[in-house]
Amino acid sequence: MDTRIIALLELQEEGRYLSGEVLSRELNISRTAVWKHIKKLEGMGYRIEASRRMGYRLLGKPSRLTMPDLMEKLKESSFVPSIKLLDAVDSTQNIAQRMAEEGAPEGTLVIAEQQTKGRGRMGRHWVSPPGKGVWMSMVLRPEIPLQFAPQLTLLAAVALSRALMAIAPLDIGIKWPNDLLIGGKKISGILLESTAEDERLRYVVAGIGISVNLEETDYPPELLEAATSLRIALGRPLERSEVIAAFISQFQQLYTLYHKEGFAPIRSLWEARSITLHKQARLVTPSGVVEGTPVGLDDRGALLVKLAGGEIIPVFSADIKLPAGDGGA
Amino acid sequence: MDTRIIALLELQEEGRYLSGEVLSRELNISRTAVWKHIKKLEGMGYRIEASRRMGYRLLGKPSRLTMPDLMEKLKESSFVPSIKLLDAVDSTQNIAQRMAEEGAPEGTLVIAEQQTKGRGRMGRHWVSPPGKGVWMSMVLRPEIPLQFAPQLTLLAAVALSRALMAIAPLDIGIKWPNDLLIGGKKISGILLESTAEDERLRYVVAGIGISVNLEETDYPPELLEAATSLRIALGRPLERSEVIAAFISQFQQLYTLYHKEGFAPIRSLWEARSITLHKQARLVTPSGVVEGTPVGLDDRGALLVKLAGGEIIPVFSADIKLPAGDGGA
Repeated sequence: MDTRIIALLELQEEGRYLSGEVLSRELNISRTAVWKHIKKLEGMGYRIEASRRMGYRLLGKPSRLTMPDLMEKLKESSFVPSIKLLDAVDSTQNIAQRMAEEGAPEGTLVIAEQQTKGRGRMGRHWVSPPGKGVWMSMVLRPEIPLQFAPQLTLLAAVALSRALMAIAPLDIGIKWPNDLLIGGKKISGILLESTAEDERLRYVVAGIGISVNLEETDYPPELLEAATSLRIALGRPLERSEVIAAFISQFQQLYTLYHKEGFAPIRSLWEARSITLHKQARLVTPSGVVEGTPVGLDDRGALLVKLAGGEIIPVFSADIKLPAGDGGA
Repeated sequence: MDTRIIALLELQEEGRYLSGEVLSRELNISRTAVWKHIKKLEGMGYRIEASRRMGYRLLGKPSRLTMPDLMEKLKESSFVPSIKLLDAVDSTQNIAQRMAEEGAPEGTLVIAEQQTKGRGRMGRHWVSPPGKGVWMSMVLRPEIPLQFAPQLTLLAAVALSRALMAIAPLDIGIKWPNDLLIGGKKISGILLESTAEDERLRYVVAGIGISVNLEETDYPPELLEAATSLRIALGRPLERSEVIAAFISQFQQLYTLYHKEGFAPIRSLWEARSITLHKQARLVTPSGVVEGTPVGLDDRGALLVKLAGGEIIPVFSADIKLPAGDGGA
């Protein structure tokens, strides 16, 4: 039914409306049913204008990622051996986890047009509507000890911030460990899930969610204070395949550097883009609240926090509350 | 059919044989079929003597773990909120993983009489026949950063060595990180599988395999040089529920100590029982072979190795080859 409605709307000359009455007659369904299908199509990424007097007209179709386009954009990269491009999934993480468990090689990408149960840090839900964002997961098999896995979380944040700044005039700050913010609002989510046996890292699945072309109406109102998209920040849409390719390219460069020279260069790049450092903050850790000023990273990837008394302690895990205005949920 | 054969053998007076011919007639199956069922029962842990002239007699039934016995033995411990006691499973790790994923609380135990696909380090198979060993997995939810997970592997090895020495006169050495050896032969396997989100440890499933009452005939001949059991070492069987209770008690003590005072006391206990230290060794690491003398642990749980030139480096992951005689595959 949905595809028939789209076909009928597309048959109209440019700019012409098709009335609900005609649609109802052609499809042999009630006008309320027509209206319900239109709502559903909007949810799928079709932009449809509804006028009570004149009916409906199609303004835009959802952008779709395609394999030929992705292959073309990624042709310079030797990092990705295979891509699984899917329509709607629960979470790309679940699929990539299963593939990793079954032996998928490093660089394997799972990309979905839509996630119904996108996962953020600490089990939080992640808004991932169809056609407007990059929702993907990448299998990594780094030859590093388990102790170093948190460094990859920081590396991924650096790679994504550099990728986005390479394709658009954006000022992106990193909130520890891996939130990317524009003007204090979150534009991406990174989640690295590690699986280890004793001290050996078996694999890591890096989940990357980027709010590329979401519009303000895509967010629940209460989220608009804390979240934004590249489209809202730039005032124009970006091509999602270009965003993916830019990320893969940056990630590959930094990952190679990391394997060659260790964490030190990644740490410098992270510190340079951080908005967490040198500002008084409140850190909610599993073992209690720490008040202090983050001053840098240590060589394990922990955040070094200077306490009021001058002592500097490493914080391995925390939710950070920045002063008002620097944002971050 | 198997239970009928056992019932018939048990009906015999002490020491009396039952002929294959009688069994064949009573059960209305061929003598070859009788023989096949006897072999199967032996695989299930029944000890049956077969004499070509006189027939079969039952020498012993497999020991079975029971919930009332386990509850009684563990009644002093507040650490275990629930036990799942199973018959034959693929691997207790798989079951405990699934339960952890579904929210099982810390201390949840999965115990099986037999594993068909017992897993050891690096995907190696682990011999786990019915009724003779402790094959179990425990869910842990430690409030520690991911970086510290490998310390738990060392803690588990210390706990198990102390538990076994508490219930029997055994001299147990720990080979880095967590193999327990008696006279150079392996008597247990420990495997901690960690799952993390970024720098947060979500849960750990500790797999513990202990060769308690295995006899020499339970091992493939090529394994007898590298593996032994408590029964072989002591010359007498031990009660498996007692072994489980001793482990839980030691583990709880050390785990509490670890959360209170950190890794330092665990490190001392580990070093005191180590057979890896102060002997020239060959360490096969993911990034190449290291030759040197392990001298201790660092505060991350890495093995400190002194190289020929005197430099001391941390080794996070390695297969260690000790000089001949100190054993360990």
